[in-house]
Amino acid sequence: MVVVVDKNLPQTKVEKIIDELNKFGFDVHKSTGEKYIILGALGVQPGFDIRKVKMIEGVVDVFRITEPYKLASKRFKPDKTLVKIKDLTIGGEEIIVIAGPCAVENENQIMKLAEIVKKSGAKILRGGAFKPRTSPYSFQGLGEEGLKLLRKAGDEFGLSVITEIIEPSHFELIEKYTDIFQVGSRNMYNYPLLKLLGSSKKPVMLKRGMAATIDEWLMSAEYVLAGGNPNVILCERGIRTFETTLRNTFDLSAILSVKDKTHLPVCADPSHAIGYRDKIIPMARAAVAAGTDALMVEVHHDPDNALSDGPQALLPEQFEQMMKQIKAIAEIIGRKI
Amino acid sequence: MVVVVDKNLPQTKVEKIIDELNKFGFDVHKSTGEKYIILGALGVQPGFDIRKVKMIEGVVDVFRITEPYKLASKRFKPDKTLVKIKDLTIGGEEIIVIAGPCAVENENQIMKLAEIVKKSGAKILRGGAFKPRTSPYSFQGLGEEGLKLLRKAGDEFGLSVITEIIEPSHFELIEKYTDIFQVGSRNMYNYPLLKLLGSSKKPVMLKRGMAATIDEWLMSAEYVLAGGNPNVILCERGIRTFETTLRNTFDLSAILSVKDKTHLPVCADPSHAIGYRDKIIPMARAAVAAGTDALMVEVHHDPDNALSDGPQALLPEQFEQMMKQIKAIAEIIGRKI
Amino acid sequence: MVVVVDKNLPQTKVEKIIDELNKFGFDVHKSTGEKYIILGALGVQPGFDIRKVKMIEGVVDVFRITEPYKLASKRFKPDKTLVKIKDLTIGGEEIIVIAGPCAVENENQIMKLAEIVKKSGAKILRGGAFKPRTSPYSFQGLGEEGLKLLRKAGDEFGLSVITEIIEPSHFELIEKYTDIFQVGSRNMYNYPLLKLLGSSKKPVMLKRGMAATIDEWLMSAEYVLAGGNPNVILCERGIRTFETTLRNTFDLSAILSVKDKTHLPVCADPSHAIGYRDKIIPMARAAVAAGTDALMVEVHHDPDNALSDGPQALLPEQFEQMMKQIKAIAEIIGRKI
Amino acid sequence: MVVVVDKNLPQTKVEKIIDELNKFGFDVHKSTGEKYIILGALGVQPGFDIRKVKMIEGVVDVFRITEPYKLASKRFKPDKTLVKIKDLTIGGEEIIVIAGPCAVENENQIMKLAEIVKKSGAKILRGGAFKPRTSPYSFQGLGEEGLKLLRKAGDEFGLSVITEIIEPSHFELIEKYTDIFQVGSRNMYNYPLLKLLGSSKKPVMLKRGMAATIDEWLMSAEYVLAGGNPNVILCERGIRTFETTLRNTFDLSAILSVKDKTHLPVCADPSHAIGYRDKIIPMARAAVAAGTDALMVEVHHDPDNALSDGPQALLPEQFEQMMKQIKAIAEIIGRKI
Repeated sequence: MVVVVDKNLPQTKVEKIIDELNKFGFDVHKSTGEKYIILGALGVQPGFDIRKVKMIEGVVDVFRITEPYKLASKRFKPDKTLVKIKDLTIGGEEIIVIAGPCAVENENQIMKLAEIVKKSGAKILRGGAFKPRTSPYSFQGLGEEGLKLLRKAGDEFGLSVITEIIEPSHFELIEKYTDIFQVGSRNMYNYPLLKLLGSSKKPVMLKRGMAATIDEWLMSAEYVLAGGNPNVILCERGIRTFETTLRNTFDLSAILSVKDKTHLPVCADPSHAIGYRDKIIPMARAAVAAGTDALMVEVHHDPDNALSDGPQALLPEQFEQMMKQIKAIAEIIGRKI
Repeated sequence: MVVVVDKNLPQTKVEKIIDELNKFGFDVHKSTGEKYIILGALGVQPGFDIRKVKMIEGVVDVFRITEPYKLASKRFKPDKTLVKIKDLTIGGEEIIVIAGPCAVENENQIMKLAEIVKKSGAKILRGGAFKPRTSPYSFQGLGEEGLKLLRKAGDEFGLSVITEIIEPSHFELIEKYTDIFQVGSRNMYNYPLLKLLGSSKKPVMLKRGMAATIDEWLMSAEYVLAGGNPNVILCERGIRTFETTLRNTFDLSAILSVKDKTHLPVCADPSHAIGYRDKIIPMARAAVAAGTDALMVEVHHDPDNALSDGPQALLPEQFEQMMKQIKAIAEIIGRKI
Repeated sequence: MVVVVDKNLPQTKVEKIIDELNKFGFDVHKSTGEKYIILGALGVQPGFDIRKVKMIEGVVDVFRITEPYKLASKRFKPDKTLVKIKDLTIGGEEIIVIAGPCAVENENQIMKLAEIVKKSGAKILRGGAFKPRTSPYSFQGLGEEGLKLLRKAGDEFGLSVITEIIEPSHFELIEKYTDIFQVGSRNMYNYPLLKLLGSSKKPVMLKRGMAATIDEWLMSAEYVLAGGNPNVILCERGIRTFETTLRNTFDLSAILSVKDKTHLPVCADPSHAIGYRDKIIPMARAAVAAGTDALMVEVHHDPDNALSDGPQALLPEQFEQMMKQIKAIAEIIGRKI
Repeated sequence: MVVVVDKNLPQTKVEKIIDELNKFGFDVHKSTGEKYIILGALGVQPGFDIRKVKMIEGVVDVFRITEPYKLASKRFKPDKTLVKIKDLTIGGEEIIVIAGPCAVENENQIMKLAEIVKKSGAKILRGGAFKPRTSPYSFQGLGEEGLKLLRKAGDEFGLSVITEIIEPSHFELIEKYTDIFQVGSRNMYNYPLLKLLGSSKKPVMLKRGMAATIDEWLMSAEYVLAGGNPNVILCERGIRTFETTLRNTFDLSAILSVKDKTHLPVCADPSHAIGYRDKIIPMARAAVAAGTDALMVEVHHDPDNALSDGPQALLPEQFEQMMKQIKAIAEIIGRKI
């Protein structure tokens, strides 16, 4: 932590600030410039609230130097994390495509979609069984039946599967069926859930909260990592801004800026970011061109009758077209799909 | 729902749109203007996804007329909801002040603060026992011990108590001790938790999510109401914007705009919105002047050693001063504290 | 500027960083901690682009210590600026109320409104003659004729006047008639205009840009101050956020946070922030309760036929009621109206 | 405009609403549903303020059907606008690359950069002569000397040129030298400037304001179009959000959503959106993959000594690499560079 003090502050007051810093447990190094005294306060604990120092009389400004997270930080672990799911690796040269319906609706639907996405090159099948819906009157998912069908479809077509967890009490049930836990943006701050996922051996895909800063996102990853689970995949899925034409604002540059800070792999989800089918393909291409490690899209063969988020699901032929284009783009940037 | 169609669209296409609307279960009234055909689609279900209509070929624009919530709506229930906690009423003429520490730390602390806030006129004692902290390395609350101490302090000084619930599994435990459940902004979208609280007889204070629109906030209230619990108090506690000088941006006008739509009472929490002690008093005055039904502030007699959020806690003498000023302001606008 | 370097960086690379800093003209003080080396780089120029340092290899983080503005800063001039307009003072004990129509429409209108606002206690009359309208098809103002009428109404009723300037070529014309120049939020970044206003002896009310940070707002003030005009009043008028229920989000706490950094007085404009008449009074009360130095509201006796922004204009009787309430609130906080 | 009225509203009140609408000049069509009466109010003027109707007693909701702009709208002119600059076309199959320094600094610099960007395939040379700088103490551009050098460099290397205009009084001067006028994001709401540009025969590149909605952006384009100049190119350059890690949030999906509404071509400027050189290439690729019609990037051969925005300028070899990659991506999506 760096504490800036006005050079004209009486010596006794400067000493009082240093005293306070010592009381908070810091070692203080002082260097005096032309206008300011800079106090380097070393030994800050990750959970320390720097507002405590901002409010000491005579303090002009305070900056945190150490990041508030540790295990998620590139400074702590410079090598990229490779998340392995069976024979797949997320975070390596290959860009992994995750596809499937928003929600598992019935056996016929999920089997059909598994076949479709597999054929075009997806490696992981998505499908919700417990849905966090904005309206209490909307379809809330098939529950365990949905998990079984998802697993069956994955096994049948040689796809790993990912499904969302929305409350701690579902943990054991979902762990039995899924290969990857998905934590949705609405649960990015659900710390009891994240702690529990820290105890799993299965990877966790952590979506960014709708208005989460990069640091908050990594703090949530830290909850999982601190619990002993190193396999976290971050997922950008659109943020909330003043612009409301589309569902959210797809913050593609976050894929790049989060990688400046962390070793964890990053996925992009244009379906939730955009919300309208006709714009998903261009934004999927953009995500691959920007350098994502994985891509998640929703696909449905009968979106008009989908029980949730039909309007943002790609049609099978659109998915196929998308896959062709992003494969070609991946090659241009030295990666593969 | 109102569907706008271009007047020059071929008749067959217009009929196709009407067909689709009928298939979705709508009754359609058509009126033809100079440039547009307006289709009134009546009978929309609360959970209907209007993007399905936006994407029909030839549709220029779609507007939802019915609100996505029902029980929370003023159109459904025009009379103000009065939430009763023992002999207190939130939503009436009196503005209820809720005060206390961020977290219960030990018996001495909570007893002392209960005495202090009672003396200056608070009616409800706040104190967290389970804390949702951004960092896994920060103090996470005393758990049941904290609940017991909070209850004891409330009983001793004749104060009702409010405490936060952060996961469904704590429901029975917390219900035993608290008078009001608090749902923090990080859990506004935690639908499994909200459903559970719908089954309680105890009131729920629902804080607005950091980037939640007014409608999403009311949809979350709808989860509680739909479960059978009519006692919901909304709480504005600052939103996330581009402005980062303070902890959040206190959206005081939301107190007014949410009341245009709902019959539920509204509380304001300047402590979390602002984050710095020296600005809490002016913003508490502003909240009362703007017309809040309740006010929640954090108070601590030794904030430098508080285990969480010390920098935003008022000192006891500041709390006393605040109470004097807001009492006088309440009178000016025909209310009382 | 503080530059943070990893302690494990090879000595030669650290020296290279110091060399670069020297080349940029900085004096460097080095202090070595447990994990980081902190370089205090002294002598930063206000216009220096700190990204240049962020991008040097081995640099972990960079913080600016000196503010990017000087004349606007409280560190440079700790005493509050009192802006005098004839016998009025903005920034002192008295809270100055500025009222009038959005636009001057005709002689009858402005004379009538001047009389109304004067009677209830306003001290300054507002009225636009050149309007920056979002639509090219909207009423754009009466031009010089409007200025003459505004001046006449002000003189007749003993009110100072304020009007907006939207382009440099109007400078001399407007200066002839007005007592205060208003710079609207759309022109906060209009630096050629701000430079010109720096050459005037008349005060400038600088509205905050719709998405301007506190620092950018003060940088724009700096343009006026650097031109030799010390009489700048800042005006908060609502910011753009994800919340669109009202016209803007009224950032009342900005009144407090900007005063942490500057000596300039601050005005609040709830009319533009909120946009709907029925919510202006509560938010005007809130602004006074929060500590604004001046308050600007729109008033119209026939808002349905107003040529611009009628829906946000208070009716005369509402203005009178507002004045009574804010006078009483001002007294509670030791100020007067 | 569609006006929604409660079905239970007394008949006399409904008639009063219809009367008011008639007085505002609307033709009213009424259709009565189960819960609501829908009034289609036809003949709305582009500049009409719908808040006037929202505030009539008994009105539940109001929706604008006609867009607030006309000439910029796809509904008015369905065919894509092709902007021609000599033998170049923006908006066609070819994606035009615009490159050069942030500011023209001296003859050697601009000649060198013109040569570099030409060699790698840029078609238009950029370079500022009048710079809108946040700080009054920063380099403000070379003025006319800069324009002359830019023209000379363009002519020498067969490149068209673009430069920014920041105030109306520079109009004739800049028109003499430039091929395209650039309006920066800070001036998107500078209506006097836009009106003037409407009188020019030269194309205008209109950058989106930092917090401008899609509709506001098109309204600003409407100012130019309404003045008689049909050659407007829109440019997305990053918006302001809660996320501050990078300079702005690059809203790539705006390229798609603005094209839903307008026939005008769209450019993307990753340099200003991102602010850091190392992330420009991936975001340039993303912009091309997403479907931009033109791409503008900053290039500098000696960015450490650039007089403005050096940190976001690509090095010549980076520019060359970017061009190779985006050419290949353009082909994949059926376009060319």
